Amino acid sequence: MEQYILLISTQDAKGLIYNISKILFANSINIEQNAEYVDPETKNFFMRSVLSGKISENILLKELKEVLPEGSLIKLNKKTKKDVVLLATKESHVLGDLLIRYVSGELNANIKAVIANHNTLKSLVEKFDIPFICVSAENISRDEHENKMIEQISQFNPDIIVLAKYMRILTSNFVEKFSGKVLNIHHSFLPAFIGANPYKQAYERGVKIIGATAHYVTNDLDEGPIIYQDVVRVDHSYSWEDMRNAGRNVEKVVLSNAFELLLNDRVFVHRNKTVIL
Amino acid sequence: MEQYILLISTQDAKGLIYNISKILFANSINIEQNAEYVDPETKNFFMRSVLSGKISENILLKELKEVLPEGSLIKLNKKTKKDVVLLATKESHVLGDLLIRYVSGELNANIKAVIANHNTLKSLVEKFDIPFICVSAENISRDEHENKMIEQISQFNPDIIVLAKYMRILTSNFVEKFSGKVLNIHHSFLPAFIGANPYKQAYERGVKIIGATAHYVTNDLDEGPIIYQDVVRVDHSYSWEDMRNAGRNVEKVVLSNAFELLLNDRVFVHRNKTVIL
Amino acid sequence: MEQYILLISTQDAKGLIYNISKILFANSINIEQNAEYVDPETKNFFMRSVLSGKISENILLKELKEVLPEGSLIKLNKKTKKDVVLLATKESHVLGDLLIRYVSGELNANIKAVIANHNTLKSLVEKFDIPFICVSAENISRDEHENKMIEQISQFNPDIIVLAKYMRILTSNFVEKFSGKVLNIHHSFLPAFIGANPYKQAYERGVKIIGATAHYVTNDLDEGPIIYQDVVRVDHSYSWEDMRNAGRNVEKVVLSNAFELLLNDRVFVHRNKTVIL
Amino acid sequence: MEQYILLISTQDAKGLIYNISKILFANSINIEQNAEYVDPETKNFFMRSVLSGKISENILLKELKEVLPEGSLIKLNKKTKKDVVLLATKESHVLGDLLIRYVSGELNANIKAVIANHNTLKSLVEKFDIPFICVSAENISRDEHENKMIEQISQFNPDIIVLAKYMRILTSNFVEKFSGKVLNIHHSFLPAFIGANPYKQAYERGVKIIGATAHYVTNDLDEGPIIYQDVVRVDHSYSWEDMRNAGRNVEKVVLSNAFELLLNDRVFVHRNKTVIL
Repeated sequence: MEQYILLISTQDAKGLIYNISKILFANSINIEQNAEYVDPETKNFFMRSVLSGKISENILLKELKEVLPEGSLIKLNKKTKKDVVLLATKESHVLGDLLIRYVSGELNANIKAVIANHNTLKSLVEKFDIPFICVSAENISRDEHENKMIEQISQFNPDIIVLAKYMRILTSNFVEKFSGKVLNIHHSFLPAFIGANPYKQAYERGVKIIGATAHYVTNDLDEGPIIYQDVVRVDHSYSWEDMRNAGRNVEKVVLSNAFELLLNDRVFVHRNKTVIL
Repeated sequence: MEQYILLISTQDAKGLIYNISKILFANSINIEQNAEYVDPETKNFFMRSVLSGKISENILLKELKEVLPEGSLIKLNKKTKKDVVLLATKESHVLGDLLIRYVSGELNANIKAVIANHNTLKSLVEKFDIPFICVSAENISRDEHENKMIEQISQFNPDIIVLAKYMRILTSNFVEKFSGKVLNIHHSFLPAFIGANPYKQAYERGVKIIGATAHYVTNDLDEGPIIYQDVVRVDHSYSWEDMRNAGRNVEKVVLSNAFELLLNDRVFVHRNKTVIL
Repeated sequence: MEQYILLISTQDAKGLIYNISKILFANSINIEQNAEYVDPETKNFFMRSVLSGKISENILLKELKEVLPEGSLIKLNKKTKKDVVLLATKESHVLGDLLIRYVSGELNANIKAVIANHNTLKSLVEKFDIPFICVSAENISRDEHENKMIEQISQFNPDIIVLAKYMRILTSNFVEKFSGKVLNIHHSFLPAFIGANPYKQAYERGVKIIGATAHYVTNDLDEGPIIYQDVVRVDHSYSWEDMRNAGRNVEKVVLSNAFELLLNDRVFVHRNKTVIL
Repeated sequence: MEQYILLISTQDAKGLIYNISKILFANSINIEQNAEYVDPETKNFFMRSVLSGKISENILLKELKEVLPEGSLIKLNKKTKKDVVLLATKESHVLGDLLIRYVSGELNANIKAVIANHNTLKSLVEKFDIPFICVSAENISRDEHENKMIEQISQFNPDIIVLAKYMRILTSNFVEKFSGKVLNIHHSFLPAFIGANPYKQAYERGVKIIGATAHYVTNDLDEGPIIYQDVVRVDHSYSWEDMRNAGRNVEKVVLSNAFELLLNDRVFVHRNKTVIL
């Protein structure tokens, strides 16, 4: 029996749960898991249900649409592996961690390709029998390079694009093209240390804790909705390289946790924040 | 408009959410917050809803009872301050923390009294204009002492009894008398270091992290359902007294977090574990 | 036998440890604890030793001065309780926590007074038999108020001034007057959310972790050397008030940990950072 | 100029630091880093120094031996890569993490081989051009198998043996053969959940935090000196498999942190505990 994940985001209204559950009940659909949340400020209602039973997708969506307010987000995703493309540059710690998880069967995903702007990681990626595509940025303009990247990515039609330490700034063109699909790991506890070289900034400031932040990519660099964060304690004896090394462990864990939330359809975006059900 | 908290724990069944939400909808009751959980092993269904509207308690309970399986737990609590009695012995750090929170208005509770088996904390408690009752255990049997304690506690008819470092073992008589109402803080990361002097045990074992555990009290000492835990890092330079001091901060935070969960009716007990909605 | 804490901060040089330990050995002084650190960038040497034995302060300082480079910091503090003044405004959670620790004998300090710019906390403080002084800022200029504060503080000649949620900005006059003695708790994980209302800022940004920072006060607001930080996890269901409440637990623990480091002479300041031995 | 790490563990005595630093000074040796610790209970003195300069190993050791008490541990290790053998069974998450770190240049080690009692991990290991040796335990006795393991390990003469989820119990013969060299990762926050299937135990007990422990292997299973621990929060919605998955992230980080401490000669063992300088 197939499982589906139903995602609803809409303006709250009286009887919403009643109306939705009535439809599910009438269609003999089981609710395996159910979580709801109403934002007390905006009165937006979020619901994530894991459904099972003989589900006729079109009928269910049509019936839900009829009882929900105009403009509601209603998604019904079959619970299957998502297609993923990884973007990288030269650093191997985050990418390598994803690859190891992948071959270990820990990720509910199909990694279609790794695309990088350097060749450094080619041999690592190919160890895992995953296509590696290098799109060099040398001697071409930023726009040209990005268009080539978009072309390469698009052929795989990915559900999620993971920036596994992809060290280039994306234009709004890219961001809009893959809106709501791009996951980034930022090597600081945002919003502390926005921008370049956060570990050096953290070292200079003398902080006692450093962190990492996984977020959706939006047009504002390092300002997208935060999905997951974690931290690790440091002290005066840490050089900035020591902080970077300590931070790498956190980056891996944070990205991997955020990725898992996306793979399981657990993240809603609402007013530049995330609601995680 | 008054708020209520509806708690339901029952065997899962098809249409449960539909049937419950139908009744709420029919009675024009708003669902302000809603959380559900189904234990995948036992198929037990848990629901906690914050309701508002003109609610007729008896009618609502009767209608819910009609659609829910025989033997379901159904509670409808008005969202008000709960009556609490604190039990203590000689240590002031946890008790003092609760009292400071209380006078700061942080606790949604009425602290009716502090009852202790020693007089040590009398002057501290009376600073806060809270009745302090000493029930000395000297020269009387364990049972006699406990009966006196029960008598003193019972006059306040408390919703919750907090053992704020009450260092005496409770008999099954006491536990059954106040079943599901007694919250304890254990000064270790249970199940590590059960029993006496956990900080000395932790020191001897050379652990690198210590913790504290808040749990419901049941007949099996230190074996009741765990509500909240937290930890703090230690190292070789900590004597066991240093560990105890570091642990005190954790004890305070853990107990206070667990207490808040209870004050907000967020904890279900199921098979010696807690479900927190 | 009295204990002393010896603190040395100086430019590193060959034979430094040898020269210092020679003097201690020659004076029959025991080294109970010893920690050293050399900053690899600036080559500054830090040393903290707990000494015991019959110690002639002047002779020891003179001999150490002879072997250490010109301009070295050399301090020899008797291991006794430090005199402390607490500054507050209206909030009781941090102040109350310090007071409870104080009456519980947890703090190796003499709290000489609580000085506040409002009368709100008077009754709380007086419960603990500690002088409460209100220096109202009404109808007087910022400078006038601060001068009155300085006057009141100065009469107690404190070793440490703790800003226990004192919500006024200090001028450079104040900061220089009590240079290196003023400990502040900032209600965010600095450098994130500098300035007013950090919990609202954190809520707006949708962070998944919030924190608190204890730091020395310098002329640059929220930019002083960081002593201790800690964090707590939050999620989308937290209103900014919920974040503030969760943050209060962290503020208490962070301030209390930093305060303890100061009471034990464990903090050096170096280039706007702290070295903690 | 070569760097050395000097490790001393001995009974504390007056003038110890003076005597040691005199020798270093007389031999024109620089102390790059220095850390000392005296156990207040046993009065054992620990020292770890990073030295540089023209160092004549035999002379330095001889001179130190003359001034230190009989039976002192004195080690002088050149700061080079250590030779390591990894032992595994079937699980890839910890092993894979080590291999990725290794090819990324994060580990200051030579991984000489991976030896396993199953063939499952052969293809993963060989991706990284590291020898994989399978010593099957089928149809042979425990002792026979272990002797074969010892034989295979011994040919590499490793400084450290890492049990990267090697799921067989070692005899005292093995432990003594490689005494002080064997690092294990236990998948629980020891001493909680000793023995088999700690995640199932944790699930049954309903804990709210799970952890992992890296420790030296001694004859008492799960009772060796603890080197590093860490934890992660879980809740009622975690099945035991979810706990295991969450725990795997912790296992990786904990083992890798402990391994790094060993690679940098930072761990002393004293009375079944570790002192980490």
